[in-house]
Amino acid sequence: MVKERNKPYIIGVDLGGTKILTVVATAQGEILLRKKEETRALGGPEVVLDQMEEDIREVIRVQGIDFEEIQAVGVCAAGFYNHRERVMVKSPNLTGWNQVPLARMLEERIALPVSVENDANAAAYGEYRLGAGRGRSHMVYITVSTGIGGGIIADGEIFHGSQGYAGEIGHITVDLHGPRCNCGNRGCLETLSSGTAIARRAAEMLASGSPSRMLEAAAMEGRQEVTARHVFTAAELGDAEAREIVGRAIEYLGAGLAGMAMLLNPEIFVIGGGVSMSGDSFFQPLREAFCRRSPGPVSENVEIVPAGLGDEAGIAGAVLLAVEEFAGKKE
Amino acid sequence: MVKERNKPYIIGVDLGGTKILTVVATAQGEILLRKKEETRALGGPEVVLDQMEEDIREVIRVQGIDFEEIQAVGVCAAGFYNHRERVMVKSPNLTGWNQVPLARMLEERIALPVSVENDANAAAYGEYRLGAGRGRSHMVYITVSTGIGGGIIADGEIFHGSQGYAGEIGHITVDLHGPRCNCGNRGCLETLSSGTAIARRAAEMLASGSPSRMLEAAAMEGRQEVTARHVFTAAELGDAEAREIVGRAIEYLGAGLAGMAMLLNPEIFVIGGGVSMSGDSFFQPLREAFCRRSPGPVSENVEIVPAGLGDEAGIAGAVLLAVEEFAGKKE
Repeated sequence: MVKERNKPYIIGVDLGGTKILTVVATAQGEILLRKKEETRALGGPEVVLDQMEEDIREVIRVQGIDFEEIQAVGVCAAGFYNHRERVMVKSPNLTGWNQVPLARMLEERIALPVSVENDANAAAYGEYRLGAGRGRSHMVYITVSTGIGGGIIADGEIFHGSQGYAGEIGHITVDLHGPRCNCGNRGCLETLSSGTAIARRAAEMLASGSPSRMLEAAAMEGRQEVTARHVFTAAELGDAEAREIVGRAIEYLGAGLAGMAMLLNPEIFVIGGGVSMSGDSFFQPLREAFCRRSPGPVSENVEIVPAGLGDEAGIAGAVLLAVEEFAGKKE
Repeated sequence: MVKERNKPYIIGVDLGGTKILTVVATAQGEILLRKKEETRALGGPEVVLDQMEEDIREVIRVQGIDFEEIQAVGVCAAGFYNHRERVMVKSPNLTGWNQVPLARMLEERIALPVSVENDANAAAYGEYRLGAGRGRSHMVYITVSTGIGGGIIADGEIFHGSQGYAGEIGHITVDLHGPRCNCGNRGCLETLSSGTAIARRAAEMLASGSPSRMLEAAAMEGRQEVTARHVFTAAELGDAEAREIVGRAIEYLGAGLAGMAMLLNPEIFVIGGGVSMSGDSFFQPLREAFCRRSPGPVSENVEIVPAGLGDEAGIAGAVLLAVEEFAGKKE
């Protein structure tokens, strides 16, 4: 324990397809210093690892601390991370990341213990420990933005499944005959309720020539292309088409949550991503759709709430997971 | 340990809506004696508890053993069993079973420790310990008969979720616009892939007047009504309508398995119930549908196999779970 007290800092790294966020944090998950830069994703794993190493060394230098004061490095990264073998098997957003032993490679560069977790799983853990899911040891976290991702907390721990891929919530089928998904399946939740799905539906509707406040909402920002946010704005303003699109996306999401409730029997769903900012105009119909789709004991008392930590849920989770893994105990 | 050796027997009880099966078993799950009788389900909980008590006393008497030689009683029962509070909250097949503290009530009658588990969860555990899932600590068990039920094994234990209701696999939505389910939802897996769903589709097709070997298969057994089994038989004989019905049910089941693979990342799916007897003509297209619907790392190497223990998976699981709960250790 004395040893741990001498190592009060954790380095957190959120490795995304577009940005790398590197932080210095306390073992309680408080972030002291942030550095963000664009991921040189096209450069392949070695280039990105160079970036990560440089960023870690830089935040340590700027914070004015010593390597000896750092307990561990906690990384969260987009992709299929095999938790058992500590290998990034595949990452859709990082070119050339096939079978990369990320934890070991980073450990060799910086001589600190490194834990790695899938970004959505880390965000789920962050929300569980410090955010909207605090104190709820059976939680499902879902992030709805351009895609749909998520993570499952069971008995206060990330539910990994056999390899670490559990929680791919965006790719459960909710409409067998639905649109084709990038993953190869049809009618995945992601093809029906994500921001991309909402924008695509809007484009289809607008192509048929009907006037809509969705276009106004986009024009207000000097944009021609309607995004999910413009659709939400138009829906709030009473636009019929926008309301239909949002209602449909919510109905599918409600069905997806209902299916997850049946399978996982959580206490709470925590919803992150852009849509979670929409307040009750989003959450109230979502709760209604959920209850319609999962009657009976399983859905009683299940809460559906917006996430609390925003974009930093992942890195907070990564930091706390590093503490868990290497200090071997919770606060 | 000496104490346990003096208590070599476990009583198992499988409480179903139509039958009660009571057994004497060893702590390894070997069944020594069976008694089966019809459940007087309409009598309500007290009548059924009377039956259970009588059956337990009878198998003990017939086996010629002593109460002192019995470690525990393991019960599996159809319904929503709240694992944390040890209460049967609701059972669709047992009249009047609302908020019944089954374990405690039975303990008071027979003065032996009683563990209770949902029947599908117990069957999952039975298959994991002694059946087709042996050695696979991340397993999903699915039983496809008149309804669809299931249980999840994670890290070698039943995944209960917050209350014990996890694993209600029949009620995940796979077609949002699908048929209405008894549960109140639409397009649950159960409405599309169960024996009942298959028989209903057959009745619809036959009502349109098309001649079919499904009718012949039923007539062979002197029946007018076509059941799922007759549809499978006709499909094997090459009947086009029957093949279409079976193919559709398999496609939906494959989509359901794919969704579960995405959420739970299991090593193996073990399929029980009537359809599991159909061999490769069922399992091969199911595997193909699964792979089509869950491309990528999650589905690689996932096995889909028939269950090994048949009707006795539940009671085997109940027996082994009683050993787990009260002896506190595995073999």
